[in-house]
Amino acid sequence: MEKKLPVAILAATGSVGQRFIQLLDNHPWFEVAALTASDRTAGQTYGEACHWILPEPMPAWAAAMKILPTETTSVDVPIVFSALPADAARDVEPLFARGGTAVFSNASAYRRETDVSIMMPEINADQVDIIQVQRKNRGWKGYIVTNSNCTSSGMAVALKALYDRFGLKRVFAVSLQALSGAGYPGVPSLDIIDNVVPYIGGEEEKLEWESRKMLGKVSGDGIALADFAISAHCNRVAVSDGHTVCLSVETAKPATVEEAVWFLEHYQAPESSRDLPSAPRPVIVVRSENDRPQPRLDRQTGKGMTTVVGRVRPDPLFGLKMVVLSHNTVRGAAGGSIYNAELCAHLGLVG
Amino acid sequence: MEKKLPVAILAATGSVGQRFIQLLDNHPWFEVAALTASDRTAGQTYGEACHWILPEPMPAWAAAMKILPTETTSVDVPIVFSALPADAARDVEPLFARGGTAVFSNASAYRRETDVSIMMPEINADQVDIIQVQRKNRGWKGYIVTNSNCTSSGMAVALKALYDRFGLKRVFAVSLQALSGAGYPGVPSLDIIDNVVPYIGGEEEKLEWESRKMLGKVSGDGIALADFAISAHCNRVAVSDGHTVCLSVETAKPATVEEAVWFLEHYQAPESSRDLPSAPRPVIVVRSENDRPQPRLDRQTGKGMTTVVGRVRPDPLFGLKMVVLSHNTVRGAAGGSIYNAELCAHLGLVG
Amino acid sequence: MEKKLPVAILAATGSVGQRFIQLLDNHPWFEVAALTASDRTAGQTYGEACHWILPEPMPAWAAAMKILPTETTSVDVPIVFSALPADAARDVEPLFARGGTAVFSNASAYRRETDVSIMMPEINADQVDIIQVQRKNRGWKGYIVTNSNCTSSGMAVALKALYDRFGLKRVFAVSLQALSGAGYPGVPSLDIIDNVVPYIGGEEEKLEWESRKMLGKVSGDGIALADFAISAHCNRVAVSDGHTVCLSVETAKPATVEEAVWFLEHYQAPESSRDLPSAPRPVIVVRSENDRPQPRLDRQTGKGMTTVVGRVRPDPLFGLKMVVLSHNTVRGAAGGSIYNAELCAHLGLVG
Amino acid sequence: MEKKLPVAILAATGSVGQRFIQLLDNHPWFEVAALTASDRTAGQTYGEACHWILPEPMPAWAAAMKILPTETTSVDVPIVFSALPADAARDVEPLFARGGTAVFSNASAYRRETDVSIMMPEINADQVDIIQVQRKNRGWKGYIVTNSNCTSSGMAVALKALYDRFGLKRVFAVSLQALSGAGYPGVPSLDIIDNVVPYIGGEEEKLEWESRKMLGKVSGDGIALADFAISAHCNRVAVSDGHTVCLSVETAKPATVEEAVWFLEHYQAPESSRDLPSAPRPVIVVRSENDRPQPRLDRQTGKGMTTVVGRVRPDPLFGLKMVVLSHNTVRGAAGGSIYNAELCAHLGLVG
Repeated sequence: MEKKLPVAILAATGSVGQRFIQLLDNHPWFEVAALTASDRTAGQTYGEACHWILPEPMPAWAAAMKILPTETTSVDVPIVFSALPADAARDVEPLFARGGTAVFSNASAYRRETDVSIMMPEINADQVDIIQVQRKNRGWKGYIVTNSNCTSSGMAVALKALYDRFGLKRVFAVSLQALSGAGYPGVPSLDIIDNVVPYIGGEEEKLEWESRKMLGKVSGDGIALADFAISAHCNRVAVSDGHTVCLSVETAKPATVEEAVWFLEHYQAPESSRDLPSAPRPVIVVRSENDRPQPRLDRQTGKGMTTVVGRVRPDPLFGLKMVVLSHNTVRGAAGGSIYNAELCAHLGLVG
Repeated sequence: MEKKLPVAILAATGSVGQRFIQLLDNHPWFEVAALTASDRTAGQTYGEACHWILPEPMPAWAAAMKILPTETTSVDVPIVFSALPADAARDVEPLFARGGTAVFSNASAYRRETDVSIMMPEINADQVDIIQVQRKNRGWKGYIVTNSNCTSSGMAVALKALYDRFGLKRVFAVSLQALSGAGYPGVPSLDIIDNVVPYIGGEEEKLEWESRKMLGKVSGDGIALADFAISAHCNRVAVSDGHTVCLSVETAKPATVEEAVWFLEHYQAPESSRDLPSAPRPVIVVRSENDRPQPRLDRQTGKGMTTVVGRVRPDPLFGLKMVVLSHNTVRGAAGGSIYNAELCAHLGLVG
Repeated sequence: MEKKLPVAILAATGSVGQRFIQLLDNHPWFEVAALTASDRTAGQTYGEACHWILPEPMPAWAAAMKILPTETTSVDVPIVFSALPADAARDVEPLFARGGTAVFSNASAYRRETDVSIMMPEINADQVDIIQVQRKNRGWKGYIVTNSNCTSSGMAVALKALYDRFGLKRVFAVSLQALSGAGYPGVPSLDIIDNVVPYIGGEEEKLEWESRKMLGKVSGDGIALADFAISAHCNRVAVSDGHTVCLSVETAKPATVEEAVWFLEHYQAPESSRDLPSAPRPVIVVRSENDRPQPRLDRQTGKGMTTVVGRVRPDPLFGLKMVVLSHNTVRGAAGGSIYNAELCAHLGLVG
Repeated sequence: MEKKLPVAILAATGSVGQRFIQLLDNHPWFEVAALTASDRTAGQTYGEACHWILPEPMPAWAAAMKILPTETTSVDVPIVFSALPADAARDVEPLFARGGTAVFSNASAYRRETDVSIMMPEINADQVDIIQVQRKNRGWKGYIVTNSNCTSSGMAVALKALYDRFGLKRVFAVSLQALSGAGYPGVPSLDIIDNVVPYIGGEEEKLEWESRKMLGKVSGDGIALADFAISAHCNRVAVSDGHTVCLSVETAKPATVEEAVWFLEHYQAPESSRDLPSAPRPVIVVRSENDRPQPRLDRQTGKGMTTVVGRVRPDPLFGLKMVVLSHNTVRGAAGGSIYNAELCAHLGLVG
């Protein structure tokens, strides 16, 4: 690419918005041209408006940018990254999509729509075909591509590697989720010190459904869900970043532990998404130690884009047990959206 | 009881030993007459030898007691509470049992023996019948009663309430276990700050087996396992006390959420164990809030002896989901052994 | 007392309000007759309105009470405990005091007023004399008594024991403060996991001033500050309850470590406040281990009302170093206010 | 440099040893040629022998290296980095120094010797002159250079910047120290969850002395201590990496806050140490936010070699207050030793 594509970040001051800025710093294809936030902060610089909570320092270019209102009249770029809350996303994202913008959204608002992909390029790059359907259905010049819930993402990658080879029947998933998944200020410290909270509102329903759509196929006017069933329990634990998921997996065809490890380790992204700037390298790492993956030690694997699997072992009920770790604000949020945008740009679907 | 029964604590300086001392302070039936520890500390007072780690202060009577070697020649009491590690327990506990002592053990050494009960009086007080078998088999005047692994205990109580009414087919269990379960010094702080360790050596095997024995029946010369299957994943989390277990349960007969809650809430201990000093009051509390139980808020329920259940809800695969919390060093360790000793004393099986 | 005095709690749903309810459960002299909270919750029961965050269960009587608006027309009792934020306290507390109510306040709003005591009965029970001055100055039938900032309280007790005997010149104080000091939701978990925040707004100024007033004397129409100087640094750490303060103390007359320990250990509350229901027993505990006090192990000393001192040792610059621990929501907040009310009731200053 | 200098790491499997390996990965001047550890592990590969606890992955070259015994007959390189415990260091380091090796040590064993420098190149590069004295005194062909205690290092840098301009009289220092400072396994998790430990054995004495030597000058046959006094309190807190120190500073000449900030911000390393590969860039960062520095957000500043200062403000007793943060295993341990070795290599004092 000769000239970088201008992009905007909607709701740039929150925790996911900050991660977008950090990951887009020196991006080879994209250049941040606009930042929006709540009306209260519009007019301030980003440095003034944002309580920055990442260990990586706020880039100077971001600190100096003026906050704009979250409106199509203020923001005119071919790509918008949305870190809006679900309610706002429902109203605002279509306005951008209608006018011709490619919207890459972290919000759950449109994930359930049959003509909207929950995209993870390393497993379902072929779902880009739904974009034409969506445009036609809705009369939009642009489109919305969502990324998955931050807990579904790592799990979906591991399941895809098994699904392709063995098929899937039933999956039991228990998450131990990081604090950053709840945003900022998010979880009060008194709720999590010396504690576990065995509940995250709406999360179990998302886990039990999203993976099936992510592993599904474009079929006619919509995306057909993959045919397997999931039971999920979700817990919040005292971890800053990195969601851990304990999985028990019943495959359709029998799979030994050795076979499962082999197909996990050798899983490759589809060709169209393999060499993009944010592509996970590799897609999956399988650890052989008996006490890994661990969030503090493994979340940065592959710059936070790689899914780390460990403890692949027999399950007395379902055949296979394993542990999956994924960086929830990188692979599971901002990094995932950027990867989606790279795929669409690469395929000529932007601008 | 007019005169208190003298008891000894083996390996009294460790974390479970300390909990024994704290729970036996002012016990209505038992009086601590002897404390043992490693040879290195023998001859010191308990106050000198012990690095006390409980918030409750060390009782003055304990601080002043001399540490004895862990030998039958040093310790002559009708009841011994053993907090020995498994290896030492395998050698030492039979020496006491042979001589006529009732040994209430926290160690895993004898749990797998078919003539030894993993006893929890509120669910299997009838397993006291195995004591006569054990004595006969082994030519012992005394006997060994073990308590369960600290993670199995809460789960077994909840399962028992359902088993009695609906039967059980399959159970998925994922634990989020407290640090005190690993003893002291136990888990290094660098391993658990901002982290989860998805592995606890040998624990999954214990969980997949012990509950079946605890819900089993004395049959002929041994204890017959209850007929259901468990798959377990075990995790260590940054919690001081209180093991949380996420359960999915497939009952043999169908059970609605309302029925399950009703039978959990109304579960009663067998009559022989109902009114003992350490009996949990009540055996089970079912919380109705959607984010409970939580270790920091609920582990002290019923002085740490009650099993707390919450989030009873439908499971798309197995029918029922729930969360179970139990205090691992009280109900799951020292408190459980004391309750076992109370049952045996009550039934005239001591001295 | 034959009949219990009815009391009200203003702002009863917050973290300090909850602690008031827990500590007033079964209080021998006081009975909670009214609970107030924000207008948004008025009309709900306390059980509905309150997100309870204490490990001790919410008393059933509290759960059933209706929330009232925070107005003198709704609440007519001789004693009011105020957990209001400073702004609201400034407006509301005088309305109650004017009408004849004794207001025991946790807010900082009136601490700086020269005719208002920052009362800790174990060190300055004689400051009750300011109440008559305050009534006269302001034309109030009732009065306001404040308690100290939660960090000042433990430190003031230790300093008082030394001040009485040796006088004080200079004090250097560095706090490591618990999360509950910031209320609920308070500190976001992402700010404190694997972290320290070396700043608490306004706290250092309070520490550098309040102790001087607490150790001061009623003199004419006001309270004269004790004549010594403090430098304070305040830090937030990952502790649920219990503020730790590192102190270096320069006494006016020389004091050896042994002398300091002796006078700390033998410090007694004034007679008027010694035998009240909430009086700390003892006022100060001095630990001799080299690694105590610690919040998790020592905060419950004396039911959370005792000040725990440890590591008394020479300081190369100021003469004495020590560590002081106090339970911030018990001795440093709700428990302190209740103790103040007991003193005033005992002295016939209520109703 | 054309060819890299071979170096060895003594006690390479511990937490500081691991940090050496991580920081020496791709070092432009040095190449790791030998790793030693306890006799128990000699003969194993590093990958087998080491329980790696850093988030950065173990380099493949390290994993494949054979562990050697810690003996001069096994290890023949011009530079040795020592992560030995103090006792072992006292015996072993001189054996290497005698034979001609330059020993860069993290141990405290030789810090108190008057002919051994506690070196931090950015503040006392001129102390290299003591090396000739040491060689002559002891008849060694090589020499020992120590680095400071991990808590002293950040504090010494900040003090140096003020000392050069204003002189120093008295300093109060209270540390909040990270867990990694105690090595691995180090602090048991049960000691630090929901807790602070206000004691670290021997640490306060080190803090009250080492900074004076680091700011001292070579004078005749030894290093003359800088003439000021320090009082230190040391605390362990629940932080993985990064020591925070609260400082109150009395300068010899008066210094305003603005002046102090200016000289801290503009402090420069001596020319000889300014452009070395591990030189901190910049030496000091002064943060202007009122709640910084914080360990989680600021410890990686300047790749962990920069000292971060914040909250520079007036102190009512000593004139200046501030907070200093330094990465304890990078700048305060392995990174510091490597920087020392770079200085000596640069000055022709190696090989």
